[in-house]
This record gives sequence, structure tokens and C-alpha cells, in this order.
Amino acid sequence: MPKIDLKFTKSVITKRPENSYKGNFGRILVIGGNANFGGAIIMSASAAVYAGAGLVTTATEPSNFTALHSRLPESMVVDYSDETYLKELIPTMNVLVIGPGLGTSAKSLQILNFVLGQVSAEQSLIIDGSAITLIAEHHLPFPTAPKLIFTPHQMEWQRLSQIAIADQTDDQNQAVLAQWRQHNPNITLVLKAHRTKVYLPDNSVWENTAGNPGMATGGSGDTLTGILAACVGQFQPADKAVLAGVYIHSDIADELTDDGNYVTLPQEIIPLLPKFMGRLASD
Amino acid sequence: MPKIDLKFTKSVITKRPENSYKGNFGRILVIGGNANFGGAIIMSASAAVYAGAGLVTTATEPSNFTALHSRLPESMVVDYSDETYLKELIPTMNVLVIGPGLGTSAKSLQILNFVLGQVSAEQSLIIDGSAITLIAEHHLPFPTAPKLIFTPHQMEWQRLSQIAIADQTDDQNQAVLAQWRQHNPNITLVLKAHRTKVYLPDNSVWENTAGNPGMATGGSGDTLTGILAACVGQFQPADKAVLAGVYIHSDIADELTDDGNYVTLPQEIIPLLPKFMGRLASD
Amino acid sequence: MPKIDLKFTKSVITKRPENSYKGNFGRILVIGGNANFGGAIIMSASAAVYAGAGLVTTATEPSNFTALHSRLPESMVVDYSDETYLKELIPTMNVLVIGPGLGTSAKSLQILNFVLGQVSAEQSLIIDGSAITLIAEHHLPFPTAPKLIFTPHQMEWQRLSQIAIADQTDDQNQAVLAQWRQHNPNITLVLKAHRTKVYLPDNSVWENTAGNPGMATGGSGDTLTGILAACVGQFQPADKAVLAGVYIHSDIADELTDDGNYVTLPQEIIPLLPKFMGRLASD
Amino acid sequence: MPKIDLKFTKSVITKRPENSYKGNFGRILVIGGNANFGGAIIMSASAAVYAGAGLVTTATEPSNFTALHSRLPESMVVDYSDETYLKELIPTMNVLVIGPGLGTSAKSLQILNFVLGQVSAEQSLIIDGSAITLIAEHHLPFPTAPKLIFTPHQMEWQRLSQIAIADQTDDQNQAVLAQWRQHNPNITLVLKAHRTKVYLPDNSVWENTAGNPGMATGGSGDTLTGILAACVGQFQPADKAVLAGVYIHSDIADELTDDGNYVTLPQEIIPLLPKFMGRLASD
Repeated sequence: MPKIDLKFTKSVITKRPENSYKGNFGRILVIGGNANFGGAIIMSASAAVYAGAGLVTTATEPSNFTALHSRLPESMVVDYSDETYLKELIPTMNVLVIGPGLGTSAKSLQILNFVLGQVSAEQSLIIDGSAITLIAEHHLPFPTAPKLIFTPHQMEWQRLSQIAIADQTDDQNQAVLAQWRQHNPNITLVLKAHRTKVYLPDNSVWENTAGNPGMATGGSGDTLTGILAACVGQFQPADKAVLAGVYIHSDIADELTDDGNYVTLPQEIIPLLPKFMGRLASD
Repeated sequence: MPKIDLKFTKSVITKRPENSYKGNFGRILVIGGNANFGGAIIMSASAAVYAGAGLVTTATEPSNFTALHSRLPESMVVDYSDETYLKELIPTMNVLVIGPGLGTSAKSLQILNFVLGQVSAEQSLIIDGSAITLIAEHHLPFPTAPKLIFTPHQMEWQRLSQIAIADQTDDQNQAVLAQWRQHNPNITLVLKAHRTKVYLPDNSVWENTAGNPGMATGGSGDTLTGILAACVGQFQPADKAVLAGVYIHSDIADELTDDGNYVTLPQEIIPLLPKFMGRLASD
Repeated sequence: MPKIDLKFTKSVITKRPENSYKGNFGRILVIGGNANFGGAIIMSASAAVYAGAGLVTTATEPSNFTALHSRLPESMVVDYSDETYLKELIPTMNVLVIGPGLGTSAKSLQILNFVLGQVSAEQSLIIDGSAITLIAEHHLPFPTAPKLIFTPHQMEWQRLSQIAIADQTDDQNQAVLAQWRQHNPNITLVLKAHRTKVYLPDNSVWENTAGNPGMATGGSGDTLTGILAACVGQFQPADKAVLAGVYIHSDIADELTDDGNYVTLPQEIIPLLPKFMGRLASD
Repeated sequence: MPKIDLKFTKSVITKRPENSYKGNFGRILVIGGNANFGGAIIMSASAAVYAGAGLVTTATEPSNFTALHSRLPESMVVDYSDETYLKELIPTMNVLVIGPGLGTSAKSLQILNFVLGQVSAEQSLIIDGSAITLIAEHHLPFPTAPKLIFTPHQMEWQRLSQIAIADQTDDQNQAVLAQWRQHNPNITLVLKAHRTKVYLPDNSVWENTAGNPGMATGGSGDTLTGILAACVGQFQPADKAVLAGVYIHSDIADELTDDGNYVTLPQEIIPLLPKFMGRLASD
């Protein structure tokens, strides 16, 4: 099984061309954060900005706008239930994230359904957290056009795939994915665990070599979605960008642990992104 | 009298097992923060997150949500007077804190009564600040099932125990506790003072060896509650976790003082938790 | 003319007694911050907390509560037009600040008048900014019981004293103060300028030896009020505490300038207070 | 073509005179930030404060007040659609910025038209982002009295000048500017690109020697407007101040890149301003 390691990741994270502008580095829309879970989408958006995304817009419950801007003036905001606005906005995006802190209410379902209906080919959609649960519970059909990247932890994967955690072997996982890929060949699975595995559309399965138990804290998954979105928005091909994003998140956490931290909080990891990625891009 | 010191604390704070997830490290609910004292619950929740709690939810006055998320996106929020929501949430928790900034209004009393009625065996409830005052003033009966940890300063202990500050000897304190433990054998008293003492359910009395007058500033007690909750959520047995939490808070403050700080503010102490605990867990 | 310098200031800032609690270090109420000038009272409250005040409460326009808590969870908040609440709160305070960002509207005047009517002997009242302008414009009588500390810049002093800036000599200033001290002998004037002068009730005039033009930025005066309040709340006698507070503010700014900063912003100065005061109190 | 480099910039950024007060360093009003783009005006105001502006007021959508104060208590706030308040405020200002996050709605247009009608001689008006787009779309006449500084990127310049990006040569740009300067001789163009060019009223064209692709991220342009405003408010003559501001922004970004950062976020650049400017002013 191929491993995701530093060397591989360095091959993906390239230097920026001298003559470039922010449109070259991805227009990202992160969607989530209800009235109770607003922090989740703040962490996702922050990770996307710090990981180099060109332009990040956050669609969330309006009660989260102020906290988001207090932490991250670099992101724009939009009411996640303003379908008129989103209908104009979504076609201008390269990568979308849906799920962090979205919740599983009727309103959450409505937003998810709307977004699933708007994304199109040439776009990548990262599906996380509550969005995975909602898709599983309501048997929502996957959109067939865009690239889909699911980022469940093992319990969410059980809900989505109907494979019990104990039975989540590569063979079983691949069998389910093979079925789904008949409808949308561009499905990636990032299965989060002690050693996260990534199942790519080309049927390869990659194992992450970084990560540690200090990451077992609220917000880790939300942070990962933002990093993945930024990577897919900046680097080619998207499959490799996903692998690189998984590694970046874990390796920064490993550095924090090596530096003596008992837990590796999202707000400690996120500000380290610009220098970590700078190191990856250098010679 | 046994002393709480570095060596003891190191014996409690263990390394995390490699293969773990956030559910292993405690689900914590901190309850408090009315419209005037919102900062108190923000400091409690922040301390819990930085001290390694797996998942922290903050139940508070909704006007505090934005400030909380601005400082701490890692915590979820819930309206502390939404009994429907809390009724579902509380049974999923391992440790609860009630009191920081709760206030003593009729609304505060209603919330306290509701929470006291919901906590059950297998859960730990840390009772602080206004919650202690309310219990004393209204002669509220203690819940008999959960582990109870009271964290009064000397004036609050006087209100609760009816022992005047000058008479708060170990004998007097133990006599009152012995009476209470007939109804709930799992009562711990953390009596905050120049040298904080902890009275455990096994009748032992421990004295903290750390602490300094720079900690005499608003928010110190609130910060302690969050650290205690995180420790009880992560380490076994709970009694030792409480002792360790008391020490961790004071020893970080001592380090700040040794480093030349005249006061040791909560927002200076809290970010030091991950590295301090990392040091405790190493070798 | 006596100079306020490092040596003098070190003689005022004493070590904290080992066995102390937050009530020993002053209960401070800062009052100000209307809907347009909320930042002023945030800076005042922050400076008070970082300079070691035991407990700080901020009375301000409620629209400022969230920003205050986002920056400073250590302070409590209260609606500055809630007279019922303030009437109970004010008698529990040692030091009050009124003025930073208060504005000069009818509402501001109402609040100022209410506070002037509530302060009593044994309390110190620091009067700054808009409060000085309001007193001058409306010819408000000074309260006779509390210690009063005015902190005008030269234009505000002109409004209050009717002495044109060009004529603000020590003799002229002392003449006005002598008149006022017939009604309240405890009046101090902190006249802010390139070299700030302090006119004490004992008729001495002190000149500050620290300070630099990098401090010429919005919020400098607001920051000073918080430092003064914390010093008066902690150190004896109050007159010396005022002198020390003036020096502390300027000398931290000088250190920032010596360290290469072109401007010395309040949010750069404030976090340096705990270590600077620790240095003053040592040996 | 003259180059904007370190040596030139050092000649503009002078030491502050010892005896000065905040009014000497510019009264700045930044106008922008609608309900969706509030972060833009927060970054502009922050950059102005950190670059040494004496007093900064932010006119924006009131929903942005709290996030602004959470990050920047040094700035005052005002509702950008409160014409009564603005009518009194604008004549007291030295430099105005309009555009960051202003949006292009009917309300945005109303605000822009109002401001264009209020600025007068002796004032400088920096026109950025949405304000440029609105002027282009609605063929708004330029005010003839104040100094005007346009800061478009190439697409905005195309909208304003009707010169397609591919045709934006110095000759073409100068031809358009020459026409405009018949009505207002004090028009400056800061044309943002890989190597930003500045077209001064004296017909000289300057090229920036600093800058790198890490700056291609949301908020770069907003940050520049704040730095320009602060420089024009502090340094003489205004034309040289504009050139210096362009360089300062880019050179700080270059230092962050040299220090290993993959992207140079506004919130990383802004806090570096006081020391960078201190270095420019020294020796």
C-alpha cells in the first residue's frame, strides 16, 4: 500500500509562479456552522485561508459572522440559507466544503440538498461531518458531475457505507466505492482514523504516515477540511492534493507534539500552515 | 498531611494511547455565564479545551456565544435555559461544571435546579462560584448519584458549610463533609486559599504546594474549574485527577511568576496548558 | 520640580503579600464606551486587568459587551445606563474611571451625573476624556467626598480650567486647582503632554521623565486611565500610585520604541504590563 | 522609469518630532465593509492604525462593529449610512479611504455618492475595490477638489479606464490619466500587479521593486489602502507618501516570504508594520 509521507507531499506542494494573482489559488466556499456548532466552520475557513487558498467565502448561520470576522477578516461571509445569493456564488467557486458544524436539522438538510443540486463538473465538493450523516440518514443521491471527497471518521463511514466499523477492511470499503463510482467515477474517501487512509478514484489506497493522539480533540476534522480545500484549490492533480492535505495536517500536529504539546489544538495548528507549506515548497 | 506536588501530578498525567479518539478524553459540559459574567464561562471552557478535554460544550446565555467562539472555536455552544436541548445533551456527558458566572438570579436558580436534577451516576459534577452560593442560600439538596466536586473559596465555603472562615479547620470541615457523605459518599471539597486544600471522599486531606499571590485576579477560579473538568475527563481515578488539576493550575502560575509576571492572568495561563501537560506526561 | 522616574516608581510598586486574595488589589469600575467609541473603554479595562487590578467591571453600552469579552474575559460587564444595577455596584468599588469613549450626548451626560452623585468618600474617581468635556460644558459641580483625579490633555484642560493652552503654566494651573481644592481638597491633575505633569493635592508638581512621540496614537489616554485605576487600587498612598501609573505607561512605550517600533499601540503596550510591573517589584 | 525601493522609502519615512500629538499624524476615515465583506474594512482600518495613523475612524455596516473592536479597539466606528453623522465627521478628516468591501448594491452606490460629494480640497481620497467598480459602472464624475488616489487591480482598471488588460501600457494609461487631470490635476493611479506601478500627478511613473506571489490572497488590497492612508496622513509630500506605502506593504510581505511563509496573510503583515517603519525611520 502506498504511503503518504513527507517526500510525496513535497512533490505536490509547488512554488507559486512569480506572476500570479489570487484567482490562481482557488475560490473556496465552506458551508456549515449552525447556531450551536459555529466554531466548526470558523476552523474550516481559517485552515483554508492559512493553507493558501486564494479567496475563501464562508456560508454559515449569520450569528456566526462576527466571531468569524473577529478571527479571520480574510474570509467573506454569506447566510447559508440565502439561496438566491448562493445560486450566484456557487458557479464562481472551484472547491466547496459542506458539513462542518452543519447539524442535522430540517434546515441543515435543506441547505445540503440545495448545495448538492448546484455543484457542477469542474468543481470539487468535500463532504464532511453532519453532511455525511444527513446523506446516510436520508439516502440522498450523490451528485454525479463534481469531484466528491468524503471525509468521514469510522462511525460516519459506517452510517454512509453500512459497513460496521469492525468490518471496514480495504476490500469491503473498495467494494462499496466501486458501486458508487458507477454513478460518479470521481469519488474519493478520506477515512479518518489513527492512521488515516485515502481511497482514490484510480482504486489506489494510501495510508498516512503522520498523526498522533494529541489530535484527538474537537475541531481536528473541521481543520482538515479547510486544508484539503486549499490544497485542491492550488495543486494539481486534485487526487494528489488531497493526499498532501491529509499529510500536512498530521505532520504539523506531530511537530507540535514533538515540541512537547499534550494536545494539538486547531488554533495552534492553523497558524503554522504558512511556514510548514513554505518548507514543503522549498527545494 | 499528603502534599500535592510535581511528582504526584506526574504520576497522574499519562501519555495518550496511540490508537485513541476524542471520545476517550471526556465529553465536558460547562454551564454558566449570565449576561454580566460571560467571561467566567469563557475562561472555564477555554481551560478545559487547552487542558486536553476531548469535546467541550458551553451552556451559557446566548449573548456570550460570539465572544466564546471568537476566543475558542473548539467549543460548541448551547443556550443554558434551553431545557429540551440540555435534557438530550446531559446524558452524553462525562463531566459537568456548573457555576462560573452563573449569577444568583431566579433564572440562575432555575438552571441550577434543572441541572442538579439531570446528572446521574457515572458523571462528575463540579460545583463552583454562584452555584455554591445558590445551593447555600436556597438549601438545595445535593444530588446523590453523581460524583460531586465543590470548589469554593473560603467565603463561599462559609456560606455552604456554615463554618465561619476563622473556624475552617480540617476537623470542622471534615465533620461537615462526613455528614454530607451519608447521602452522597462521593463528595470532594477543593477549598481555595493561599494553600488550597482538597478533601477527598476517602477522608484524606491534601495540601497544594504550588500557587502564589499573582493568581489573586478575576477569573482564577473559573480557570481552575475547566482544568479540573479536563483532568477528570481524561485521567483515572477521578480523585487523583482533581488533585493533579489543582496543582497544574498553580504550578503554571508559579512559572509565570518566576518568569517575572506581577499578575498571572487566566489568558496567560491557559495557552501554557498543552506544553505543561506534555512535560508532565513525558518520561 | 520633582521628577517621576524609575527609582521613584520602584519605591511604589511593592511585592504582593503571600497570603492575599483578589479583594486586596482593588475593585475597579470603568465607565464609558458609547456606540461609536467602544474601543476606548475596552482599552481602559484591559489596562486595568493587566496592571494587576483585583476585579474589574466595565460599565458600557451593551453593544460593546461582546468585543470586550472577546478581548478580555477577565472583566465583568454592566449596561452603563442601568442605574438600578449601578446603584448597588458602585458602593462596592474602590476606584472608578469615567470618561473613555463616553461621548457628549444627553445620555452621556445623564450617566456622568448619576455617577458623580453616587461616588463617596474612601473612593477614587478618575475623570477622563468626554467626562472632562461634559463637566466643562455643563458647569457640573465636582463631588466633594471622593478623591478626584483629572486626566485631561491640554485642550481638555483649557475647557475645564478656562486657561488657554499657551497660558498653562504651573502658576496658572495651581491657582485654579487651589480654588477647586477649597471644595474638595483631594483633587489631582494629570496634565498629559509631551512631558506629562502631575499636580498633587499637597501642591507638589511632578514631571514625568518617560514618554515618546510613538505614543501619539488613538487610545493612549484610555490606556493610561486603566493603569492609574489599577495602581490606585493596589498601592499606597494613592498620590504616589498615580505618579507610578503615569510612569509605567510611558516607560513601557519607551521600551517599545527602543525596541524599534515606530508607534506604540495600546494593544502592544497592555500585554507588557505584567512583566514590567514584575520587574519594578523585584529586588 | 524610477523605481520604488528601500532607499527611496527611507527618505520618506521620517522620525516623529519629540513634541507632537496624535492630531499631527492624520485623521483617517475608512469607509466600506457591507454585511458580507466586513473583513475588508477591518483589514484596512487595522493597517492604518499599525502604520501609525494618528486617529482612525471606520465607517461600516453596524454588524461589523463588534468584530472590528474585537481586533482593533484603537479605531472608532460609525454607521456608514448615517449621513448626518458623516456630514459632521468628514470635514475633520485628512485622508479618506472608500471601497474595501463596500459592495456594489444600491446602498453602496448611495454611500459612495454621498462621500464623493462631501470631500473637499486639502483632503486625500483613496478609491479602491467596489468603489472603482461603481464609478465605472455608473459613470460617476470624479470630485475635482481633493487629491484622488485610485488603487485598482488590472481588471478594475479596465473597467474604469476602458483599456483592456492586454493594452494597459504606460502610454495608454497616461493618455487616460491626462484627460482626467484636466478636471482634477491631483489624480494618482496605483495599478496593482505583479510589479505594481504608480502614476503620479507630475506624470512620472514609478515601479515597485518589492512584492511576491505569496501576497496573492484575499485582503492584500484592503491592507494596502490602510497603509497608504496612514502614510499620506503622516508624511510629506503626499505623492512620495503613496510610493512609500506601496513599498512598505510589499517589502514586509517579502520578509515574511524570506522567512519561509508560503502565503503572506494580512493578519501576519499588519502587526509587523510598527517595527518595519521604525527601521525605515532609524539612522
